[in-house]
Amino acid sequence: MQNIKAIVFDAYGTLFDVHTVVEKCEQYFPTQGKVISQIWRQKQLEYTWLRSLMGRYEDFWHVTSDALTFTLKELGLETNDDICTDILKEYLYLKPYPEVPYALNELKNHTLAILSNGSLEMLNDMVQNAGLREVFSNVISVDELKIFKPFMGVYQLAPAKLGIRKEETLFISSNSWDATGAKVFGFQVCWINRFNKTFDELNTRPDLIIKSLDELVTYIR
Amino acid sequence: MQNIKAIVFDAYGTLFDVHTVVEKCEQYFPTQGKVISQIWRQKQLEYTWLRSLMGRYEDFWHVTSDALTFTLKELGLETNDDICTDILKEYLYLKPYPEVPYALNELKNHTLAILSNGSLEMLNDMVQNAGLREVFSNVISVDELKIFKPFMGVYQLAPAKLGIRKEETLFISSNSWDATGAKVFGFQVCWINRFNKTFDELNTRPDLIIKSLDELVTYIR
Repeated sequence: MQNIKAIVFDAYGTLFDVHTVVEKCEQYFPTQGKVISQIWRQKQLEYTWLRSLMGRYEDFWHVTSDALTFTLKELGLETNDDICTDILKEYLYLKPYPEVPYALNELKNHTLAILSNGSLEMLNDMVQNAGLREVFSNVISVDELKIFKPFMGVYQLAPAKLGIRKEETLFISSNSWDATGAKVFGFQVCWINRFNKTFDELNTRPDLIIKSLDELVTYIR
Repeated sequence: MQNIKAIVFDAYGTLFDVHTVVEKCEQYFPTQGKVISQIWRQKQLEYTWLRSLMGRYEDFWHVTSDALTFTLKELGLETNDDICTDILKEYLYLKPYPEVPYALNELKNHTLAILSNGSLEMLNDMVQNAGLREVFSNVISVDELKIFKPFMGVYQLAPAKLGIRKEETLFISSNSWDATGAKVFGFQVCWINRFNKTFDELNTRPDLIIKSLDELVTYIR
């Protein structure tokens, strides 16, 4: 953790809790909220990787919608377009993890940015709805490259937009595969392991592991 | 299903049951065989996609070994190199699904080939150990391109080696994402849905869906 000129955050699962959707899912499908959310997230990620590899990019809203469609079919839950749209809209209102607003405020003497798979519209709405827009100097979406993480070129967007070198970038993610991609690319990397998960075996390790974002404050205030 | 000049099979999960490993896992970790096998397979696939996207290819044996390491850590199971190696070797002895030998024999007046993520050595050993080597004119590995399915260039290996056009190729997979990749590439595609799974929502559908390989015989004897 040295010579850091900007802190760049992953959004989904790192700053924002993708399982915020459980409550809305429960409204339509009682008792099924958690399992819907789990399969939905897994498929959403798989579809980003598969579409990227096939060279068949569609934006994150589209992919997230398709993953929800799969999930409800897989669970045999009857649905319709209105229900799917209503559930999908929750992605614009995902809640930050509890410590995130405080921690971001403590880090505000640094340049803070987001680099995410989300489309720019999704990201801006979500950040705005969480009252965090003014915290970030840049909200950067992979959408302009039409390929998802962990394609290496995607990570380059952050130093390019911020006018810094990759070695001067501290990238923060709770997604082990994303932290791996960022490390392979050449960022300094911090993995937030809130839920005692196992780091993926992809031949690399993060520079720092913390259990919640507020811990970071002690390392780089 | 017309003008088919060769039938090209995916191997793992399509002709061969990756969950053959459950028995060996149970020897070392009683009651854990099924859950080990499930996580192991999921991570194995994820690592093929992630390594391909990162441009950090390692062969399927390496990836399969890493996925097993992750799985045992994730489940908190104590292990050592000898145990891991012994379990990993099961990949050379995966069993064909019960109907596969009969069905391949019925299809033998066609050119039959395998196109798989497996390294050539893994594939040849597995096919040999199952007594099926003489059935296939070609066993083709993605290894020569150093990237995994569903990267489009990988599918081109089959028509290139067989000297046919992609439209004349019938590709068969039980992996929904692989059937998708093959269809996007331009093969005729059959999905074997043995376990009543849901086809992935990636904006394409197979030409034919069957529940086991012997059904194919009635379509293209």
